[in-house]
Amino acid sequence: MKTRLIEISFASDVALVHPEDARQMGIDIESRLLIRRNGMPIAAFSPMISQDLVGKGEIGIPKSVANALKLSDGEEVSAEGVTASESLNIMAKKTQGMRLSREEIRKLIADMVSGLLDDAAIAEFVTLQSTVGMDDDEIHELIRAMVETGNKIEFPYPVYDEHSIGGVPGNSKVALLAVPTSVALGLKVPKTSSRAITSPSGTADTMEALANVSLTTEEIRNAVEKAGGTIAWTGRLNLAPADDIMVRIERRLLLDPPSQVVASILSKKVSLGISGLVIDLPVGNGTKLQSEREAENLAAMFVKQGGKFNMSIKALITFGGEPIGYTIGPNLEAIEALTALMKGEASQSLMDKAMYIAGALYEMAGKANIGEGEAHARDAFKSGKSYEKFKKILEMQGGNPEVKPEDIPVGEYSETIYSNKSGAVTFIDNRALTIISRLAGAPLDKAAGIKLYVKIGNRVKSGDPLFKIYSSSSHRLSEALAFANSVKEIEIGTMLLKVFP
Amino acid sequence: MKTRLIEISFASDVALVHPEDARQMGIDIESRLLIRRNGMPIAAFSPMISQDLVGKGEIGIPKSVANALKLSDGEEVSAEGVTASESLNIMAKKTQGMRLSREEIRKLIADMVSGLLDDAAIAEFVTLQSTVGMDDDEIHELIRAMVETGNKIEFPYPVYDEHSIGGVPGNSKVALLAVPTSVALGLKVPKTSSRAITSPSGTADTMEALANVSLTTEEIRNAVEKAGGTIAWTGRLNLAPADDIMVRIERRLLLDPPSQVVASILSKKVSLGISGLVIDLPVGNGTKLQSEREAENLAAMFVKQGGKFNMSIKALITFGGEPIGYTIGPNLEAIEALTALMKGEASQSLMDKAMYIAGALYEMAGKANIGEGEAHARDAFKSGKSYEKFKKILEMQGGNPEVKPEDIPVGEYSETIYSNKSGAVTFIDNRALTIISRLAGAPLDKAAGIKLYVKIGNRVKSGDPLFKIYSSSSHRLSEALAFANSVKEIEIGTMLLKVFP
Repeated sequence: MKTRLIEISFASDVALVHPEDARQMGIDIESRLLIRRNGMPIAAFSPMISQDLVGKGEIGIPKSVANALKLSDGEEVSAEGVTASESLNIMAKKTQGMRLSREEIRKLIADMVSGLLDDAAIAEFVTLQSTVGMDDDEIHELIRAMVETGNKIEFPYPVYDEHSIGGVPGNSKVALLAVPTSVALGLKVPKTSSRAITSPSGTADTMEALANVSLTTEEIRNAVEKAGGTIAWTGRLNLAPADDIMVRIERRLLLDPPSQVVASILSKKVSLGISGLVIDLPVGNGTKLQSEREAENLAAMFVKQGGKFNMSIKALITFGGEPIGYTIGPNLEAIEALTALMKGEASQSLMDKAMYIAGALYEMAGKANIGEGEAHARDAFKSGKSYEKFKKILEMQGGNPEVKPEDIPVGEYSETIYSNKSGAVTFIDNRALTIISRLAGAPLDKAAGIKLYVKIGNRVKSGDPLFKIYSSSSHRLSEALAFANSVKEIEIGTMLLKVFP
Repeated sequence: MKTRLIEISFASDVALVHPEDARQMGIDIESRLLIRRNGMPIAAFSPMISQDLVGKGEIGIPKSVANALKLSDGEEVSAEGVTASESLNIMAKKTQGMRLSREEIRKLIADMVSGLLDDAAIAEFVTLQSTVGMDDDEIHELIRAMVETGNKIEFPYPVYDEHSIGGVPGNSKVALLAVPTSVALGLKVPKTSSRAITSPSGTADTMEALANVSLTTEEIRNAVEKAGGTIAWTGRLNLAPADDIMVRIERRLLLDPPSQVVASILSKKVSLGISGLVIDLPVGNGTKLQSEREAENLAAMFVKQGGKFNMSIKALITFGGEPIGYTIGPNLEAIEALTALMKGEASQSLMDKAMYIAGALYEMAGKANIGEGEAHARDAFKSGKSYEKFKKILEMQGGNPEVKPEDIPVGEYSETIYSNKSGAVTFIDNRALTIISRLAGAPLDKAAGIKLYVKIGNRVKSGDPLFKIYSSSSHRLSEALAFANSVKEIEIGTMLLKVFP
């Protein structure tokens, strides 16, 4: 059969087949279709059978998928119906509460990566993790299988990294301080991260305001060699691709099982051969963790699983009850980070978090005693060494090392929200600020987001500004504003709560 | 926007949208698209975004879906992005092991029926039922919600019905004896069933060899009024449509949670206002129930749930260790049933099961004492009264009441499997015979299937025929034969098992 590339975007992988071809192949719409080139399997698809959209002998492939598979138009391929019944039986066993063996988990992940499992089957696996759960050995095998089905990047020296499980707006800029500071302390830090999934900005989105983050394996190795570190996007690296497949369904179903949180992060880090990792677990309103107890359990899982891969892990349980620093959104956060690096000082929440992380990594590398790392980190940051390293990283990633905060654009449309009473800020709703920032266009609109004027505990007077919303689109700004006016994102407490008649 | 009907078959509901329209509507491939006609919502779809397949202002709808929705080509509709976040949050709650309230279950089922939930979300719900499970109240609310979101058929008198949960090949013909016998005993029996899902033939498929089964609500009411009963397909009736939506995903994932087995069957029966129901629960190799204990638990669930709808239920736990009667596949089973009805006698397994069912229904209607119904049923059957009623049913469903067994075609290609040793039949593999029949083409190829020459306990000599495979396609016959030769579907035991050297 011959490929025909079609401009299609769809939530799952689909291939168009003519009904006569489907009949000959013995497939129907419930089948999965495996495509081979020169006899080698390259991907599996859900068949869409249509006589109107493709001709006989043609197999219609979405252009974006074809590009990723390096398939060109009119190429000769073969196709056959395949089933994932072995993986489905493995999952049916799990519904009965049984443990899965190494071989079973490997089969499941291999079928997932080769495209044999459709969305319903992936949803089943995510739901099973959320309900039946996985024990330590199963999580270990899951991570192994996820690593084995992807690329690896090796370094000729020990490398260190940090990762936040997220949920706190404004957090994406922390790495822009923590990574160059760790590098300034002599560590090698190949920091990679995804783009924002549900947040207003991921570290990759924020870094992209200043440099190219879409690096190849070679570029990452080179940046770490020459600049001591990098802040890059995982997108082009094909590290643990099963993670990306599952994240898509987890996000769609609003599920986030702890076993998959751990497997997702560690599979990427194991693929990079990280020897010491600091995990940031924010606890508070709107974050993924509702209590310190829950954070401790997750921390224990991380430490245990890391140990099985000879990765030492330190988990920092942090206060996530309000945004980090004073900005939310890619460009606004990049401005705040760059300003801090240049001045050698940052707002307390941003500074503390970045220095805890760099200090902990320094201690893990055996270069400082426990409890002494943070002071070294602060020295490096204040002395301008972090900024020097950051400029080198920018340069290696094709950015302008001399970029100034005022060079980074913010949304041309903006609107300020003011307090309508006097008192002290008692509560800031993380989730509401995330929604407002995303309605304003973040993270795709890099110039969109929020600038905060107050944090919890600050005293305000009626009429004082609370925060300002930025957007590149007046339409989006008005949507964000409409939402902002419908909720109480910042609460101001006063002594007198109510008066009865 | 204007509809454009396209000849497409796909496993889930999809609508094609031009990228510019998608941008204007603010939807992406992860959204669900709700289509309205004159402002009334008619269905939701997964958007497939393509500039190659539809023009701007057009919305491409698969023809089969458009037919079902009575949408014509070029019709004016509006479309908007919608989310199922409320239902997703309800399910996320269930992953934590929490009970769902009546309102939550209703919301979930309403979203499922209106198309808001995609395959991944439906898979999540099916998996949750398989793992977290549902308590009695939740199952009751589930059935209620499934009934309320579909059509109902009302009768001006009490009506009775029987249903098998399946898993035994050859079982589809039982209703062709049990229903007319119950009618001969004076009961009104609006028997409806689905087509085969994983079996070689469903009761609707087998009945279709003799009459039209695709009846409307009016035709069913009319048949019950004039002939006392009917044997029809549920397909056109829109009874508890959530059931059909979930069955599709259950089948794909090879899952069959007990709560959904009960809800699936009872939602259809409550929609028909059945007052007395006999449930057949076959136990044995290849069936859905592995032990009598498991069958008893399921029976108790049926009885309890039926009671909440004022439906009295009797569950018959039956021997499912070998096929029912001597035939498997739509036409072959229709031939066996018709022959039995005409002669007033049937092979033991077929006769026993049909008469247990008719007798139990007769007792439930209060027309015979407990333990005496079966004898009345056998009398009716032997005397030819059942056959007379069956002819009337055939006539009402547009069949030929004078049809003879030899008028019904069997596959023109056939091959017999012979025993290669002497002894007694000790085991017949239900699952293998199901696979062989389906490979031969059943149920779509009505003339395909198996004729058995032996049952468990029969003595055979080497060279005696064991069974014969029929197909309308020589290619399919050879595939079925290849599988038959690769497994031991019928085991012959002898005294001497092995000889050492």
